[in-house]
Amino acid sequence: MTGIISDETGGFSFEQNFMVDRQLYFIIAQAVWIEYNIRWGQNTFRPQHHDIRKRGINMAGTIYGVGVGPGDPELLTLKAVRSMQSCDVIGIPAGDKDSCTAYQIAVQAVPEIAQKQIVAVTIPMTTDAERLEKAYAKGCADLKRELEQGKNIAFLNLGDPTIYASYMEIHKRLADAGFHAELISGVPSFCAVAATLGIPLGSGKEEIHILPGCYDDEIGRYKGTTILMKSGGRIGTIKEKLAGMEQRGQISAYAVSDCGMESQVVYSDICQVDEQSGYFTTIIVKEEA
Amino acid sequence: MTGIISDETGGFSFEQNFMVDRQLYFIIAQAVWIEYNIRWGQNTFRPQHHDIRKRGINMAGTIYGVGVGPGDPELLTLKAVRSMQSCDVIGIPAGDKDSCTAYQIAVQAVPEIAQKQIVAVTIPMTTDAERLEKAYAKGCADLKRELEQGKNIAFLNLGDPTIYASYMEIHKRLADAGFHAELISGVPSFCAVAATLGIPLGSGKEEIHILPGCYDDEIGRYKGTTILMKSGGRIGTIKEKLAGMEQRGQISAYAVSDCGMESQVVYSDICQVDEQSGYFTTIIVKEEA
Repeated sequence: MTGIISDETGGFSFEQNFMVDRQLYFIIAQAVWIEYNIRWGQNTFRPQHHDIRKRGINMAGTIYGVGVGPGDPELLTLKAVRSMQSCDVIGIPAGDKDSCTAYQIAVQAVPEIAQKQIVAVTIPMTTDAERLEKAYAKGCADLKRELEQGKNIAFLNLGDPTIYASYMEIHKRLADAGFHAELISGVPSFCAVAATLGIPLGSGKEEIHILPGCYDDEIGRYKGTTILMKSGGRIGTIKEKLAGMEQRGQISAYAVSDCGMESQVVYSDICQVDEQSGYFTTIIVKEEA
Repeated sequence: MTGIISDETGGFSFEQNFMVDRQLYFIIAQAVWIEYNIRWGQNTFRPQHHDIRKRGINMAGTIYGVGVGPGDPELLTLKAVRSMQSCDVIGIPAGDKDSCTAYQIAVQAVPEIAQKQIVAVTIPMTTDAERLEKAYAKGCADLKRELEQGKNIAFLNLGDPTIYASYMEIHKRLADAGFHAELISGVPSFCAVAATLGIPLGSGKEEIHILPGCYDDEIGRYKGTTILMKSGGRIGTIKEKLAGMEQRGQISAYAVSDCGMESQVVYSDICQVDEQSGYFTTIIVKEEA
């Protein structure tokens, strides 16, 4: 590859590899890559006008529901990086950048999003239908305003957008309103948790069950592997039950908080999981064969 | 960003944007990016000698179980790309490159793996314990030989390595033997299938159940969403049952074959799923609220 590089670039010699200042090298590589992506991106990420015109929304932008993965910025996909680089607007599922975990992950891999326009959409953690409806309506209105100006939006989601992301309701509403809306998959948190633990989630004929939340009566109900997501707050009510089952050799229980982030904690003993541990605590329960 | 680029690169002007030949531009950008990655990669992906020395395997290489995602080469993560670029050897879970789906995906995003040494590990699709044991033992021996020479190996897995990958048995054996072994998460196929369909796998308190294979008595057993993976061969026995439940308004059923690949088929009617459809057919069954 090195040979090809120096032939093609005409004088931009890589033969003097060790004389090139490392920092400058980094900047050139990143700048060229970004520039190339922006241009290439403009061709592939522009809204498909023929689609939208049919529906009467001429020249409107496209919204991409982008999965940014579980925490490690290197677990962003090439497609997620490219979409953020080429889009005009970044949508975030939080009140501001600082409190948005998805944004904080993404900006480490794609620093230029810090200069882009942000549309913040806050969906409250509530079951109150009226409050939810108001929040979704306001979020959609804010996003529509940008789309109608022909701007493309990359809306960031922690993990994968199809797995417990409030964005999916926005996605559905905008698609139903005739806007071009696409999803870009990301690595779900439970995959990174299993990778950190070095264990399979499923092998052979083992079933995998994903439960959003953490309820006493669900422990031990299912065969194979059970994943308890976002279980931070409720761990107090179930960790003794899990520890008991583990002692009797029925299950193995694992827990990881803030997987892939600086604050990551891997618990070797389920009893040690802090009841004050973050929202992003994932528990994996594996039935013993 | 463009302003910064031309300042920093000193003469490599991006102001003459439209005069730069597009093809050459692509080659320069890619080459610089690859070169930068190879060098940066060498620093982070070298074996951690202090770890391995403790275990008595001095200067041995590291094996990375790499998820290459579901099919679209753009769904590779930055980490997967970097590991393939920096490793000396590519491990594949098939007899050769041509028959290896994971390799065919990866080579589109990282063309230079075509020039790298390949170690092919074939695990037969059988429940015969003796044959399996022989295959795993041979695979591990072949990989160990390279690791002991100090070579690093990126072992490719379709989707995510923790979800139904035969590699996990190899990973466990090599880690147990004292080798440094790491997992690099990938996008699982079912996330890409849901993204293609534009539907959430789970939202709110909905449970998600992943079943490897496709059995008549499992349909309708679980609440929320049920994902039937690798169901190509057995679809004949269940599609009528699914269609009946759908007509009665109990469920919505979706199917996608070879998601993200050129051969992708999205079935709008579950009855249309070809019984000869590929191994990589995923069926999503959503319980109607």
